Amino acid sequence: MSTLPHDDLATTWRTARPRPAGVHLDSAACSRQSTAVLDAVARHARHEAEIGGSAAEAAAEGLLQQGRSVLAGLLGRAAADVAFTESASASLRTLVGRWRLAPGTRVGVLPGEYWHNLAALTDAGLVPVVLPADGPGRADLAGVERMLRTDPPALLHVTLVASHRGVVQPGRELAALCRAAGVPLVLDVAQALGHVDCDLGADVAYGTSRKWLAGPRGVGFLVLAPAVSARLTPVVGPERYDDGGAGTDHARWYESHDAHIAGRVGLVLAVGEHLAAGPDRVRQRLAALGRATRERLDGRGGWSVAEPVDEPTAITTLRAPAGVDVRATAARLRAEHGVLVTAAGRERAPAELTGPVLRVSPHLDATEQELDVLAAALAS
Amino acid sequence: MSTLPHDDLATTWRTARPRPAGVHLDSAACSRQSTAVLDAVARHARHEAEIGGSAAEAAAEGLLQQGRSVLAGLLGRAAADVAFTESASASLRTLVGRWRLAPGTRVGVLPGEYWHNLAALTDAGLVPVVLPADGPGRADLAGVERMLRTDPPALLHVTLVASHRGVVQPGRELAALCRAAGVPLVLDVAQALGHVDCDLGADVAYGTSRKWLAGPRGVGFLVLAPAVSARLTPVVGPERYDDGGAGTDHARWYESHDAHIAGRVGLVLAVGEHLAAGPDRVRQRLAALGRATRERLDGRGGWSVAEPVDEPTAITTLRAPAGVDVRATAARLRAEHGVLVTAAGRERAPAELTGPVLRVSPHLDATEQELDVLAAALAS
Repeated sequence: MSTLPHDDLATTWRTARPRPAGVHLDSAACSRQSTAVLDAVARHARHEAEIGGSAAEAAAEGLLQQGRSVLAGLLGRAAADVAFTESASASLRTLVGRWRLAPGTRVGVLPGEYWHNLAALTDAGLVPVVLPADGPGRADLAGVERMLRTDPPALLHVTLVASHRGVVQPGRELAALCRAAGVPLVLDVAQALGHVDCDLGADVAYGTSRKWLAGPRGVGFLVLAPAVSARLTPVVGPERYDDGGAGTDHARWYESHDAHIAGRVGLVLAVGEHLAAGPDRVRQRLAALGRATRERLDGRGGWSVAEPVDEPTAITTLRAPAGVDVRATAARLRAEHGVLVTAAGRERAPAELTGPVLRVSPHLDATEQELDVLAAALAS
Repeated sequence: MSTLPHDDLATTWRTARPRPAGVHLDSAACSRQSTAVLDAVARHARHEAEIGGSAAEAAAEGLLQQGRSVLAGLLGRAAADVAFTESASASLRTLVGRWRLAPGTRVGVLPGEYWHNLAALTDAGLVPVVLPADGPGRADLAGVERMLRTDPPALLHVTLVASHRGVVQPGRELAALCRAAGVPLVLDVAQALGHVDCDLGADVAYGTSRKWLAGPRGVGFLVLAPAVSARLTPVVGPERYDDGGAGTDHARWYESHDAHIAGRVGLVLAVGEHLAAGPDRVRQRLAALGRATRERLDGRGGWSVAEPVDEPTAITTLRAPAGVDVRATAARLRAEHGVLVTAAGRERAPAELTGPVLRVSPHLDATEQELDVLAAALAS
């Protein structure tokens, strides 16, 4: 018997996908696609071979536009605001590349900002300035409000749920502060969409298919408020479109055209499955799984949990006891116990982490028994 | 009975893939994947769902490295020089983005350079300067030699086979001239690899999986001489790699990590099928198909062929008779005759095209009977 809510979600989720080879507690790295999604991707690729790539894409356009609409809905925007991309990092590169902010432009980031994001910002000549945060790395709203009032950066870039720590940033409150200050807010929702509420009022949100939405790899999205895309410059202009660009939704200018279209079809189906499960119920169960994970693992074998026990996410990170190698532990868990987790290096967030962490990220069908297996393995 | 060489290739190619819904003469847009490639892609995605995305990628790494080696071989380079990317255009963006040439740097291009390529160059602040060429747009070697001697650009960017015209540039001769002048040569081989010889001595070559190699969409490659990558700056440094970057092949720094790995597996298999067929024999049959296409179509219904009849490619482009709409013709061919070709707009190469063209691009299994169907349809 489970003490977790919504056990029906676990059953549905598990029976909908191929049987895992072991205990998969690694959805923050890459989740498990459902059989229906896998089949839809394969079917689209076969369709390309039968009727041609462009014809297959045209035939799928209705579905893809539905997908843009549904993704947009989860982010509080409209279908016209959504561009499909290759990944979260491709989305961010497109955003900062096309925004063409002057070199030296200041961008507010939290201390735990993800290394690739920081690299993409600084590569574009932008200067990250660190926003005030509390001990676990959560934005200090009073401090942010003061900074926005006295010395505002040109925009804020916030990763709603970090890759190295399962803490949710106060996105809605940050969006309100930004709106009041007239400073655009960009949210990285790669670890957040399909996991926590992302309809928060940000101006830009971007993420990836393969994590909590359980879609295919090689697909991402970039969702832009019209006021933001009005400030962007596309690489190629209206001559790209049949209609001369006149009737083309603004975000489409930033969508890649030679792309993994089959994967986009798969993402649309995966988002549909997420909606069918009920985003609220999914969030409740994932949060309960996070709590169950932290309760079981904190202190085991000397490992300590970084998140507050009731943080409403399914990502738990563990600091190693002295002398224990995190990477070797992840390898041992996989080899000896069939448990899949991630060894996350300090480089992911060098200003926040003091060392590597072991990341545990169950999806809906993980069981308390599986968490017990991990707890026992860590203690051994 | 066929008058084309190597009929066995047609049989093998046709039986290896799903049956097309009509007459597919559109490989320059997107070719037809084989069943083995489709299955390998689907199998990898399923494997991700079973053992996890990273574990599946690690398990495929031997195959992927073989693929880098084979791709490199077709381009006269080594496995260490190959980065998998998302597309040809992603490859070019990475190249010019990471090269960080000073704004205003001059890049030699031919008059028929592809619009997206020009846009990527100018977006990076580079200044395209037009190389001398003859009537059909082929590089004028004496003129290029003179320019390299008297007023050399910093590099040359040449599309070996254009998207809007089936003419092969003299890549080997250009590479020799560039080498003599100490000017790097970048070749866009998106329409060339798997179609014509690409082992020509260029410093950089990039392309895509989905055209003549008949691999999956959403996969490309960027192949860099070590001397070029020594001049590039990666977005993120050695902390990305387990070995601190010390033992990582130089081109891998430019490979995307959150990617359509299943598609890369598919490309590797597709390249393997190309090798198994024999690249020389493939080129001979494709060239013969090009000649057969041009002989049949030139003058039909007033359409005129742009390429020399014996140009050794399978791409034929047709200029419309006065008053005939190219896009409407492509739609009519598909709807009424089940023939798939491309209407290529003038914007693809505005300095070379005077109007849109109808592009016909058969792959190995196209028959003379199918070309006759198209010829009759054009005349009607």
